[in-house]
Amino acid sequence: MNQKLLIDTAELASALQHFADERDWQQFHTARNLMLALTGEVGELAEIFQWQTDAQVLTMRQDDPARYQHLQEEVADVLLYLVRLASVMEIDINRAVSDKIAKNAIKYPAT
Amino acid sequence: MNQKLLIDTAELASALQHFADERDWQQFHTARNLMLALTGEVGELAEIFQWQTDAQVLTMRQDDPARYQHLQEEVADVLLYLVRLASVMEIDINRAVSDKIAKNAIKYPAT
Amino acid sequence: MNQKLLIDTAELASALQHFADERDWQQFHTARNLMLALTGEVGELAEIFQWQTDAQVLTMRQDDPARYQHLQEEVADVLLYLVRLASVMEIDINRAVSDKIAKNAIKYPAT
Amino acid sequence: MNQKLLIDTAELASALQHFADERDWQQFHTARNLMLALTGEVGELAEIFQWQTDAQVLTMRQDDPARYQHLQEEVADVLLYLVRLASVMEIDINRAVSDKIAKNAIKYPAT
Repeated sequence: MNQKLLIDTAELASALQHFADERDWQQFHTARNLMLALTGEVGELAEIFQWQTDAQVLTMRQDDPARYQHLQEEVADVLLYLVRLASVMEIDINRAVSDKIAKNAIKYPAT
Repeated sequence: MNQKLLIDTAELASALQHFADERDWQQFHTARNLMLALTGEVGELAEIFQWQTDAQVLTMRQDDPARYQHLQEEVADVLLYLVRLASVMEIDINRAVSDKIAKNAIKYPAT
Repeated sequence: MNQKLLIDTAELASALQHFADERDWQQFHTARNLMLALTGEVGELAEIFQWQTDAQVLTMRQDDPARYQHLQEEVADVLLYLVRLASVMEIDINRAVSDKIAKNAIKYPAT
Repeated sequence: MNQKLLIDTAELASALQHFADERDWQQFHTARNLMLALTGEVGELAEIFQWQTDAQVLTMRQDDPARYQHLQEEVADVLLYLVRLASVMEIDINRAVSDKIAKNAIKYPAT
């Protein structure tokens, strides 16, 4: 696995910062505010699954396209706030993810 | 902003699926299970910030390196479960994120 | 502190079960479904605070009654799903809370 | 349903404030801090269920008493932070819950 290719969020983080700058949102984008916003989006993601059976989830894409579309948007929202949070905390997500995968591989050896 | 470069999680999703396959974890990686695991990791992320002032958060990297290291790992954990959840739901995160950014740009015009 | 008076959720749990029975919701009220619903409500609660300063939060009741009303409803929603979750898991919340307070008093001695 | 008996958290809220006062924790117990702490506890609650099937959850009390004990403690933790959050926001939980149940009864008529 080429760890350099794992994820490239540098440009995404930069685009989100530009987006916030243009709207004068920097004042709101403290780490703690973004953490609460992330919690909010995770709640919206959870709501999509709350009354669904595993069988319904498996066929959501085909049988419930509106819900599936909503799912895609909530996944994106969680990712956007996570990348923004990492950005204001000066975290290199690519390296953080690579390090965590390496750590997990040691913690959970392949059977 | 070159949207093709925004994020490349295809290889990451593939690596995580391989990781799960090697450990016979596919049986556990239903979308609803991963949603609960994601919630757990978001909770661990929130705990890092819960008793910190904004001032302490701003200097965490310098003044509290152990907490900052922990933060990096929790950010990675949230991302890993989110990418895994998107993967089992057959979501193209790159496209979902690009679409959401485009939608946000319309919803919130630059001032 | 009279621990018997701490909280009386027996009647509340019973009322919520009756409410679910009348609507044929028992089938949906598995512990895992209620856990996801609880996560959703906690997300809605977090959203109320996400862009607020501590100063704004302190005067919310006076200065932003609509937000304060919303806050009251979300607090209630979180409690209702928590009591319902405890109920389907046959947990005596009153005893669980009393036990946890006693445990906390030992873990964190008064200074 | 006797709404006066639904829940009595006044004494619990008072006991928790006394507990915080004795430890000089008032300074930490802002609403936003408690919201993050609540999120952390909800994450710990979710982790209990994340890899469990519905069948395993149903027999947890008998088959996995250690997990069931942990579950009771996490339910208590979520409730304690929720009551504390409501307390610092000057919310009468009893009334909030009664109001929400009345609202739900109108929103979802019994079938």
